[in-house]
Amino acid sequence: MNETRYDWLSDRWVIFAPNREDRPNQYRQTQPVAQNATIECPFCSGKEHETPRPTLVLPETDSDATTSNRRPNPAILDQQAWQVRVVPNKFPAVSCRESIANQLVTSHYHSDLALSDSVISLPENTFGTSQQKQLQTATAEHLFQRNTSPRGAHEVIIESPIHVDSITALPPNHIAIILEAYQRRLNHWRAQRDLKYAVIFKNYGADAGASLYHSHSQLISLDFVPRDIEKINNRLILHHEQYGFCYICQLINEEEERQERILFSSEHFVALCPFASRFPYSFSILPRAHQSRYEEIGQKEREDLAIVTKKTLSALESAHPSAAYNFVLQTSPFCGGNEQAHHWRLRVIPRLSKIAGFEWGSDCFINTVTPEHAAKTLRSHIV
Amino acid sequence: MNETRYDWLSDRWVIFAPNREDRPNQYRQTQPVAQNATIECPFCSGKEHETPRPTLVLPETDSDATTSNRRPNPAILDQQAWQVRVVPNKFPAVSCRESIANQLVTSHYHSDLALSDSVISLPENTFGTSQQKQLQTATAEHLFQRNTSPRGAHEVIIESPIHVDSITALPPNHIAIILEAYQRRLNHWRAQRDLKYAVIFKNYGADAGASLYHSHSQLISLDFVPRDIEKINNRLILHHEQYGFCYICQLINEEEERQERILFSSEHFVALCPFASRFPYSFSILPRAHQSRYEEIGQKEREDLAIVTKKTLSALESAHPSAAYNFVLQTSPFCGGNEQAHHWRLRVIPRLSKIAGFEWGSDCFINTVTPEHAAKTLRSHIV
Repeated sequence: MNETRYDWLSDRWVIFAPNREDRPNQYRQTQPVAQNATIECPFCSGKEHETPRPTLVLPETDSDATTSNRRPNPAILDQQAWQVRVVPNKFPAVSCRESIANQLVTSHYHSDLALSDSVISLPENTFGTSQQKQLQTATAEHLFQRNTSPRGAHEVIIESPIHVDSITALPPNHIAIILEAYQRRLNHWRAQRDLKYAVIFKNYGADAGASLYHSHSQLISLDFVPRDIEKINNRLILHHEQYGFCYICQLINEEEERQERILFSSEHFVALCPFASRFPYSFSILPRAHQSRYEEIGQKEREDLAIVTKKTLSALESAHPSAAYNFVLQTSPFCGGNEQAHHWRLRVIPRLSKIAGFEWGSDCFINTVTPEHAAKTLRSHIV
Repeated sequence: MNETRYDWLSDRWVIFAPNREDRPNQYRQTQPVAQNATIECPFCSGKEHETPRPTLVLPETDSDATTSNRRPNPAILDQQAWQVRVVPNKFPAVSCRESIANQLVTSHYHSDLALSDSVISLPENTFGTSQQKQLQTATAEHLFQRNTSPRGAHEVIIESPIHVDSITALPPNHIAIILEAYQRRLNHWRAQRDLKYAVIFKNYGADAGASLYHSHSQLISLDFVPRDIEKINNRLILHHEQYGFCYICQLINEEEERQERILFSSEHFVALCPFASRFPYSFSILPRAHQSRYEEIGQKEREDLAIVTKKTLSALESAHPSAAYNFVLQTSPFCGGNEQAHHWRLRVIPRLSKIAGFEWGSDCFINTVTPEHAAKTLRSHIV
């Protein structure tokens, strides 16, 4: 039987329609394959000159480079054996190199972002006496608002010197080093004035948006907090103010009691398929203890998270061997009022279904796999 | 140079990064191909028995069947030559056949949907004296809210008795009949008590979510207004109240003056690439005259829209021969306060890029093609 479920955090309804799994498909699905992936790979050991100067190389052996405010000396570091390298993206979506040429627009949109979703930011002085005056002002304010010099950064985290396509091919102690690289780069960008948000993400497989085969993830930092992130953060803050406790902490308690959507639990983390997930087999890894910033996890948690990440992603790859997926590490925004209300999470989004016209036309997703079924299946593939 | 642009209507920033077009791609992209598409096609003339009883067949020849409240007699209609058939989806996302078994949940979520985005609907009586009481109530209210008997409908509009894959293979007078079918079915569902919204959409090509080859579109009606639609509608209402005119009418005026994002204009419609579009080469077809409900267009507008639709979609197919795309017809919600403030639109969303982890993690899209470039390219393919 079909049902709709509400995701309180993102304030969205999702339609669950398991019956649609049975519909016929006349299209033969072919998996995009990597071509010449080994020969032309710029991420392999020995090809360091093909990428820009690294902003971080792990393990660090130059003691000066351990301070996050100082750029490590790549000449020294690249000569040594490295396990994880972070380099600027050669094709950045945003870049810090641009100067702030349009401060007015930037400040306008920051003040706009602070408003609640339902309030429209029409400055009072845009009301003229004539309709013509109103039209002109409305144009400038609403129609073509832009920032021609966005600030931010776009980095690539090269996860291994050897040519593997999946992070699951690496041992947990290596994954822990990748998680440390995430931590250090987030700390670095959080410390930059004018930047407001950063997200770490992985595109695994062509259907998930990957263009290179060698296992890597990316970091993008921005000079604004995207609307959806701001909204979720605001809801966590308001929940905390009204109830005195964290929504996600409460969610973890309830889910652990019910167990049906739990995929895996460890000392510090729980992996679960969300009650109103938009994508088949998607799951989140959440820290049990309330923690706003991912960057603040300690070494023990990092080692534990490496194991949980490897186990759960391996289960997904085992259950759906050809599936592409994204993962997204969402830490607290750099400026968000009551930052303590945030609870960071690592979301895994398998790309097993196509997003179709209905979803684009309604922003309401149809999911053909219930999270209860997804959790049961994935649990059976945990080794 | 990269820039960010703000879409005032959806309240979203979009990153434009044309430089990312140049990045290398190690994955060989293969287009999914239809297999046995002709033999097994349930939508072709002569295979009417393979689909459920139609809810509309055009052209109508049974005079009784012209009233939208009465189901046409399929026994009569299917024996005659038909050009467009509308049938219930055999694998519906939502279905009217379910009874309303959970009225309480349904009414709760409707009242919740009426609240503004930034206000959290925590009923005052959920505050107990003990933390335990609060936890229990918070669980029920927030964590697992569901409607196990959603109401709605899911129909398939079979666009032709002959086996063509694209609507552009049909002549304009045939497309006008498809547009009339949209109109009639939207009118039908709008008249149903308890339904709040309906969207018509097309998935063309496997990458756009199509599972069958034969040209068709779909209608889904729902017993709630999806959040994003409600938000856009609210913004149009507030804009109208504050300025005394429609945001989209003003946008059309300004765009026609500038011309750089206009793709095609006709007597009644304008097709343009939105200033802050999220997808490469996406465009919208908008009625010049302010009109809230698509269902209210007249015969002349329908004929004009058929020509504009054919010309612009053909231009897209000519510019990107293997591109999948979605189109989405967004009419006013069935219940939305000041309904007159709405301005319907037909959005075309080519699926030329993959949505990757950054987009899922931030709800902020990176578009590698500016709308100015897209409009110029598509204009050159208009014949």
